[in-house]
Amino acid sequence: MRTQVAIIGAGPAGLLLSHLLAADGVESVVLETRSEEYVASRIRAGILEQSSVDLLREVGLGERLDREADPHRGIYLQWPHERHHLDFVDLVGRQVFVYGQTEVQKDLVTAAHARGQQVVYEVSDTALHDLETDRPSVTFTDQDGQEHRLEADVVVGCDGSFGPSRSAIPDGVRQSWERTYDYSWFGILADVPPSTDELIYAWHDDGFALHSMRSSTVSRFYLQVPNGTDVADWSDDRIWDALAVRLGHGLDGWSLATGPITDRSVLPMRSFVQQPMRHGRLFLAGDAAHIVPPTGAKGLNLAVADVALLAPALTALLKGDHAPADAYSDTALRRVWRCTHFSWWMTTMLHTGTDPFDRQLQLSQLRWVATSEAGAAGLAENYAGLRIGF
Amino acid sequence: MRTQVAIIGAGPAGLLLSHLLAADGVESVVLETRSEEYVASRIRAGILEQSSVDLLREVGLGERLDREADPHRGIYLQWPHERHHLDFVDLVGRQVFVYGQTEVQKDLVTAAHARGQQVVYEVSDTALHDLETDRPSVTFTDQDGQEHRLEADVVVGCDGSFGPSRSAIPDGVRQSWERTYDYSWFGILADVPPSTDELIYAWHDDGFALHSMRSSTVSRFYLQVPNGTDVADWSDDRIWDALAVRLGHGLDGWSLATGPITDRSVLPMRSFVQQPMRHGRLFLAGDAAHIVPPTGAKGLNLAVADVALLAPALTALLKGDHAPADAYSDTALRRVWRCTHFSWWMTTMLHTGTDPFDRQLQLSQLRWVATSEAGAAGLAENYAGLRIGF
Repeated sequence: MRTQVAIIGAGPAGLLLSHLLAADGVESVVLETRSEEYVASRIRAGILEQSSVDLLREVGLGERLDREADPHRGIYLQWPHERHHLDFVDLVGRQVFVYGQTEVQKDLVTAAHARGQQVVYEVSDTALHDLETDRPSVTFTDQDGQEHRLEADVVVGCDGSFGPSRSAIPDGVRQSWERTYDYSWFGILADVPPSTDELIYAWHDDGFALHSMRSSTVSRFYLQVPNGTDVADWSDDRIWDALAVRLGHGLDGWSLATGPITDRSVLPMRSFVQQPMRHGRLFLAGDAAHIVPPTGAKGLNLAVADVALLAPALTALLKGDHAPADAYSDTALRRVWRCTHFSWWMTTMLHTGTDPFDRQLQLSQLRWVATSEAGAAGLAENYAGLRIGF
Repeated sequence: MRTQVAIIGAGPAGLLLSHLLAADGVESVVLETRSEEYVASRIRAGILEQSSVDLLREVGLGERLDREADPHRGIYLQWPHERHHLDFVDLVGRQVFVYGQTEVQKDLVTAAHARGQQVVYEVSDTALHDLETDRPSVTFTDQDGQEHRLEADVVVGCDGSFGPSRSAIPDGVRQSWERTYDYSWFGILADVPPSTDELIYAWHDDGFALHSMRSSTVSRFYLQVPNGTDVADWSDDRIWDALAVRLGHGLDGWSLATGPITDRSVLPMRSFVQQPMRHGRLFLAGDAAHIVPPTGAKGLNLAVADVALLAPALTALLKGDHAPADAYSDTALRRVWRCTHFSWWMTTMLHTGTDPFDRQLQLSQLRWVATSEAGAAGLAENYAGLRIGF
């Protein structure tokens, strides 16, 4: 097999890259270890930045998004007795959109089918070869046990934390940074209309809570829980009680609607960055190069930004212009570190630990962010997202 | 002895309070353990916020300040290869003034002498009594060994971290928070014109450095050093070399002028807040209630803000209106926690530790603060200072 760009991973990063390359007339093949159904149904991020939406619209992926995405002007930031609205549109002229990663994935799969994109699902033993030459390749075994070699001009790793691409950059070359956190998110999906028009980020002595949503009938909630928490330890009553306390403490006239819980899972939190994001003819995009804790809703958007930068750089490279590809890693990493810092900042501002001084710092910072225009604009600028190419 | 307000401590907080009270026709006596000369010569903070200067001007303490203080539009923020100017006037319409605490103290002492203010220096065995009654008192021994009791309507503790006032609030009532840091400041005064027009805050892999100044011929420098550093371990050459590296790394065309070092000391860093700031007829102001690390130049300004709030509250209290005095602690603490957070934030953004992820977060944050208007405005708003009464 031979193609121009071998893409490892058929999540949003990999499929969007193949979409953008196809629009530029560049051929790609996408390899994915999971099944199409599995990838399509993974519940992940739910917030798109303005610039992610702008990009999806520009490349013909905006039709259903424009119909179904719920535009939000901002978020609520709260602590006991006080809830403040931050209006990103007023503050920085940009907004965000509630549109689940599952929906983005559906649109990408539909578009891939429509253009006859070759996506090979359920591959195994994926290995990268000859990355420092002009003829790199990827070997893999298909679901029938057949071995293949996919030769390409360029290989792109969009295969997340656990794929082989990240570690295909040699030890002496790659550098990584990691931060783990003392807490996880207990996430639930519930068949209940949201009790809020926009997301609520709540600081509470018992721990952080987030009220998000998927649609007018489906709500998404998260509770800060200790690492190692077992979903079995949390009855429905315990979940709703904790949410009601953390989201409603001292707020007269607001109450939380409850409903059947359809999904529950515990999500660990981690910050991770690997650089460079390019080595020879291998490029990394999305989670393959960086992981952020979900608090700032940056993971999917960062993947979109990587790919938006990478697609034209690869197109140029294949035409003999190396400059954009040579600049890719440094340019992408500026945004990666900005979002890594912002995600860490949102996370550490909102999740409670054991240190009482930290709690007072958090409350003072929250009060400032919610009531100072500069403070609010700082959060808004980062949350609503920087322009592509920043 | 009897007075209306017994003030413990003749530093800037205590003397400014007696000044403001005198202007309102309220009589006070100030007690101080040190000598007048010692208090006058302590080298401390050097930056006044806009609102501190406005207040000093309003109450007749602005004459020499207006002549000698050096107004600064902002600061420089830098890391290797990049120096950025943050213009507070453009960003938030306020500026700061270089005018040493020693100068403020001189102006306060001159004014105290002029109005015949009673200040008793070199007292010992200071003890507070009957604070929960309407007739509190302070006992002390004067420099001749004579014991005295100063009766008052109100006692104010302006006696810093080591004075008796802080702990005169009973254990079951007071709450405190503390944070220590893994580094100290090595501070020097040098007879050399500043190599910069405004302060330079420098992040460096070797540690933080600050280029400040006292006048057109006297510069003040600080170097981050490990706790427990002995000034004897740092020769003049080592000091100047370290400053040249940390302040000049990768900046072509800039060099550091050197000169005779006239003072050197190691300053520990600490955050501390005690609340409430009022118990019965005892009120705390300045360092007696809170300590900030010096990075944000907030210590003296916070003392001025406390006193600016407290003086009218005490005047009202003595006339039978309790409301402002009852509100003092909560109102003052809002600003205290804002400044405590800001000082912690500036400190942790600029001082390097051992964690490589933290260093990347710091650089990303510095880059954002220096290049985003919202980021820069956030620093400027806090550094140039909030209005009194915030």
